[in-house]
Formats: sequence, C-alpha cells, structure tokens
Amino acid sequence: MNLKEKIRVIEDFPVKGISFKDITTILTDPEAFDYGISEMIKAFGDVDYDVIVAPEARGFIIGAPMALRQHKGFVPIRKPGKLPAETLTFTYELEYGADELQVHVDAITPGLKVLVVDDLLATGGTVKAVKDMVQKLGGEVVGMGFLIELTGLKAREMLQGIRVESIVQYEF
Amino acid sequence: MNLKEKIRVIEDFPVKGISFKDITTILTDPEAFDYGISEMIKAFGDVDYDVIVAPEARGFIIGAPMALRQHKGFVPIRKPGKLPAETLTFTYELEYGADELQVHVDAITPGLKVLVVDDLLATGGTVKAVKDMVQKLGGEVVGMGFLIELTGLKAREMLQGIRVESIVQYEF
Repeated sequence: MNLKEKIRVIEDFPVKGISFKDITTILTDPEAFDYGISEMIKAFGDVDYDVIVAPEARGFIIGAPMALRQHKGFVPIRKPGKLPAETLTFTYELEYGADELQVHVDAITPGLKVLVVDDLLATGGTVKAVKDMVQKLGGEVVGMGFLIELTGLKAREMLQGIRVESIVQYEF
Repeated sequence: MNLKEKIRVIEDFPVKGISFKDITTILTDPEAFDYGISEMIKAFGDVDYDVIVAPEARGFIIGAPMALRQHKGFVPIRKPGKLPAETLTFTYELEYGADELQVHVDAITPGLKVLVVDDLLATGGTVKAVKDMVQKLGGEVVGMGFLIELTGLKAREMLQGIRVESIVQYEF
C-alpha cells in the first residue's frame, strides 16, 4: 500500500504557508490505518522496548493501538493539569513562546525501555521534550517513530543518538 | 479480571470534592488495557457499526484501538482549530460556560452507523454533544460505550433512546 496516497494534504493550515498533512483520511480507512500501525511496529521489530510513550492528542491515536497490539504499556504525555497523580512538568521553547508537558513520574521507572511515537515529525520540538522527560526520570529512549516525517525541517539533527523511523516522508 | 482494581482513584482532582478515576494505571498494564478494550468490543458484539467516533484526548486511547481491532474507521472529535478540512462546529453548555467541538463534515456520511466511545461517562455533556454532531450530519448513533460510568450523575437520562454500555461503574 502507498500510505502517502491516503494522506490528505491541506494547504495554508493552520497558517499560511503550511502544507498540513491530514491523517484523518488514514483513520477512516481501516486498511490504511492497519497498514500504518503495522509498518510502525515493523520499523522497530528488532528493538526491545517496555512501553510506548506518546504526546496528546494525535500521538494517542498511533501509540495506544501500537502498545495494545504489541502487548506493551502505554504512557500518555499531556498538557498541564490533565494527569492526576504526581507529575514531572517540563517546559520547552517553541518558535514563538514556550509550552509545557507533563508525565506521571511513576510511569517511567529507571531503566525502562521507551519507544516514543507521534503522528508527525516536524521541527521535533515536542518529541525532543518527551525524550528529555523520559531521560530525566531514568528511562532509556530506544527509538522514536512517526507515521510522517517532514525531512526538510531537519528534526533528526536535534535527535542525534536516537534511532528515528518514519513511514512516509515529505520535504515540508 | 477485576478492572476496577486497576483504576487509580485520586481524591480532590482536578478540584476539591471530585474523586478522579485515573485510567493511566490500566494503560501501563498490558493485560488490563487489553481486557478493557476487549470488554468494550464485546459489549457491542451484537451491534452493527461502521465507524467509531471519540472525543479528544482520552477518548482516542479507547476508540483508536477498538477501531483498529474491529477493522472499522476511526473519526476523531476535536477542540476547535485542530481539524484542517471542512468542519461542523458545535457549541454546548457546561456547568459553567460553554465549550466547542469540531468534526470533519466528510467523516460522517448520511446513514453511517456510529459507535461513540470515551473513557468516562460523567455528566454526559461531551458525548451528548458528539451524538448531536453525528446526527446533525445524518449519521446514526447505534451505541455509546465507556470504560467507566459514574452512575450517580445520571447521564443516561440525557442519552435516552441510545444504547449505553459501560465496563466499570462508580456512583461518583
């Protein structure tokens, strides 16, 4: 299957100049959704991991099914105020301003092997923050997987030392 | 399995007096996560549906794996500004103030049989809005499923005529 054909590209969303990659057209196509999740799993077929970690909200759509199918734990990364138990709060810089993410501290135990996934790798700011959070709690990030990668934004330079896999690539 | 034992209850979150049902302890336990999703699917084993619809963000953790396993489409309901194609925006009242949700209009075609799912049925305000959105686009809501139901909040009274299933019940 050519997964790229199942992605809807919408120009100038959310702002002018951005060519938005819409995965909802994959989700409404059971064959395509299954193929995407299967390819994500296959990309890390030789990697040993304990849990899958994903940031809200689209990351949940990829990470939860992967975890369930692979019989691994799933750890959600959330915006502040959503996780009820003790959290680590992490502030990271965006192009304009800053953002915050939280993770339950008891969800990442020292030595835990973590696969970080999301739907899209763009600048990499969010998943870099997720990686730093996992590492701060003593977890080991053994890989990062994305359905789509925007290669022209060169996020991999920021994620050096980590194995990064993507299923479909666009320049921008 | 007693799924209730896998749910972490945290008092006074997000505000005093609320006894928060934390499902992240299910998600980090692969047996429990699998059991919960399997029970959700089993609860609608006799129901014919085309797609699963779920509101962000925890709804995605339940709905996406169910859809994938049942080989159905998955339609995310999102906060405003997240969905890139043509959307229906729906405003609904909360206890204090109002909230808005969006759905891609081409994701719900007339006559489509829709199963609405979320992690928790509390007052039912959000899923009532989801139901109204689906119906406004001509879809047929054939059921609503929840991992957890807070029976004391009597959401079912607002969802009359719809089959509602839940796996674990608390009064509040």
